[in-house]
Amino acid sequence: MSPKNLQQVETPCLVLERGKLERNIARMRDHLAKLRVGLRPHVKTAKSYDVARLAIKGQPGGITVSTLKEAEQFFAHGITDILYAVGITPNKLDHVAALQRRGADITIILDNVESARIVAARGVALGIKFSALIEIDSDGHRSGVKPDDAMLLDIGRILEGGGTQLRGIMTHAGDSYNCDTVEKIRAMAVREREAVARCAARLRAAGLPCPIVSVGSTPTATYSEDLTGVTEVRAGVYMFFDLVMAGLNVCKVDDIAVSVLATVIGHQPDKGWIITDAGWMAMSRDRGTAAQKTDQGYGVVCDLAGAPLDDLLVVSTNQEHGIVGRRGGGTLDAARYPVGTLLRVLPNHACATAAQHDRYHVVAGDAQVTAVWPRFSGW
Amino acid sequence: MSPKNLQQVETPCLVLERGKLERNIARMRDHLAKLRVGLRPHVKTAKSYDVARLAIKGQPGGITVSTLKEAEQFFAHGITDILYAVGITPNKLDHVAALQRRGADITIILDNVESARIVAARGVALGIKFSALIEIDSDGHRSGVKPDDAMLLDIGRILEGGGTQLRGIMTHAGDSYNCDTVEKIRAMAVREREAVARCAARLRAAGLPCPIVSVGSTPTATYSEDLTGVTEVRAGVYMFFDLVMAGLNVCKVDDIAVSVLATVIGHQPDKGWIITDAGWMAMSRDRGTAAQKTDQGYGVVCDLAGAPLDDLLVVSTNQEHGIVGRRGGGTLDAARYPVGTLLRVLPNHACATAAQHDRYHVVAGDAQVTAVWPRFSGW
Repeated sequence: MSPKNLQQVETPCLVLERGKLERNIARMRDHLAKLRVGLRPHVKTAKSYDVARLAIKGQPGGITVSTLKEAEQFFAHGITDILYAVGITPNKLDHVAALQRRGADITIILDNVESARIVAARGVALGIKFSALIEIDSDGHRSGVKPDDAMLLDIGRILEGGGTQLRGIMTHAGDSYNCDTVEKIRAMAVREREAVARCAARLRAAGLPCPIVSVGSTPTATYSEDLTGVTEVRAGVYMFFDLVMAGLNVCKVDDIAVSVLATVIGHQPDKGWIITDAGWMAMSRDRGTAAQKTDQGYGVVCDLAGAPLDDLLVVSTNQEHGIVGRRGGGTLDAARYPVGTLLRVLPNHACATAAQHDRYHVVAGDAQVTAVWPRFSGW
Repeated sequence: MSPKNLQQVETPCLVLERGKLERNIARMRDHLAKLRVGLRPHVKTAKSYDVARLAIKGQPGGITVSTLKEAEQFFAHGITDILYAVGITPNKLDHVAALQRRGADITIILDNVESARIVAARGVALGIKFSALIEIDSDGHRSGVKPDDAMLLDIGRILEGGGTQLRGIMTHAGDSYNCDTVEKIRAMAVREREAVARCAARLRAAGLPCPIVSVGSTPTATYSEDLTGVTEVRAGVYMFFDLVMAGLNVCKVDDIAVSVLATVIGHQPDKGWIITDAGWMAMSRDRGTAAQKTDQGYGVVCDLAGAPLDDLLVVSTNQEHGIVGRRGGGTLDAARYPVGTLLRVLPNHACATAAQHDRYHVVAGDAQVTAVWPRFSGW
């Protein structure tokens, strides 16, 4: 597709500002370089090789994925070192084995004895060695072995027993998304590091290998001040950022690199509403800022150049309709936004919004589309 | 892809029970046949020709779409009578014109003088006649001209002035999704019909044509008792139904034809949690039941045959993780749901959940996959 202006594109569609993307990537790279730890970018946000290659540049070369489809797509682009960072299920092991046989170096994760036994047995049955990390629960957020649980060593011994190879440990401080101050994020980063440091020491003291000690979340990666003992950091949303990250003070609103381009289709002047063609199908149903100090509705409305407009939000959505109104209600000058006006909407959650689209319209600060980058979804 | 069992499919994935689908379609067809009105199925829920062809059977043959991508996809399957039921934007008119030139009979909608002038002018410029319905606001929900607004006739006259053809009116009682009793849905159905009947009479009294009088939403279509003056009904979610519709008493939980197949990946016994591989990416972020009497979390958890289990809900989600717990909290017997257990999760909102997937695994009541039907997303 040849480059054109955003004025010529059908809406809704996804816009990516390349300058902001590169600035975000450089900031995380420089920060982690100071802490002397490499980055294993999480490609679940972008699901695009064109984006990921910018994030991988100057890093050790491995990536983190959230689906085997991501593994397949990035392996097809020549990336072999792939951490699949969702607890493995039996029905995916044949697929992992097939990827390994084709030359991919896949690392899976698990957090319980049952899974370790299943994986080990399947490895033996398939005549393959699955490589695994043990997932550690550093924040009570979701999955993982508690750092002091005896099960850690039980799992480690099963994984070293045949059919599998223990590669180390990983944790994700997902609860950092719920921190309401930067101080709490910093404390969470300390806790994340300490949890894996303790587990690595326990495994090694038991004579078990632990070459990989992996941590990560965009908030904790951003505010980490010491990563001693950590061998790699994982993060993904930092490439794009979003309103949830801005609400956490992990970025500024001006750092947000993705937005949804919408067109005004009508007005309801008595209600102070502008109606657009970007509903929840284009924005996603994510309302991540609803629990933050500043609720951003379904997104912050900007002009075509990406500057926030008059405190306008997408206050409500239907499938293919966005309802734009003033924050807190009130009238607005509909004449400023006639039918056909193009608006850009910053998303609550970049991972969720990007997932609704099959390509990025890459712009260089203005409305000029310099490239169209494909992205994929699904499993 | 050859049929197999759900046990052999990688999760998460979308499951469609053909028996329930056909029963739901037959019920709506029989109801509207009694009211002597044809159905123009809305394909935005299913986005699948395999599903839509069952809904079209025995109906006049036209469909409703929410995107021009739907129009393209269904036109490619030979469907020509297509109502694009989202207010038109200038940047889509060339695409509509191209579809018309290729033989599609597209009807667009709009609700204001500005849009009517833009469409008329573009029609003249392109040497084409765009066919349009005027959208009526029957419930204050979103878009449309108020039934008594003088603008109705202004728009009608512009559309009859050249470059366009006025085909009539349409309304969508979207507020029926917020009714908390069946009586209120019935009242909404009456209001929906009366609004368009009044507008049709006003247009005709002014000498303007109004051959099409189109109404629709699954709740009002289900509970309509009189459709005098209405020429067609639009509805989409009735094919699949979902927990929001069950909460409105528009269907029973047992009528829900779509679900997401998930696999248990681990447990957090101290919290009463089962962790699965179906997070919000697979379920969508839709929390439509949160505002209803019974909040169903991110979905009702069923066994492999589709029967609800022990009052289990997906109580929380991350991108690729579902957290399953007991409704209202409390412990559960994790041993009943070992790693690898397959669960089916009924969605809050079928349109949103289905949109996260690229195919339906069609089953016939048990775990046997009898077909795989593709579906599409995006614009």
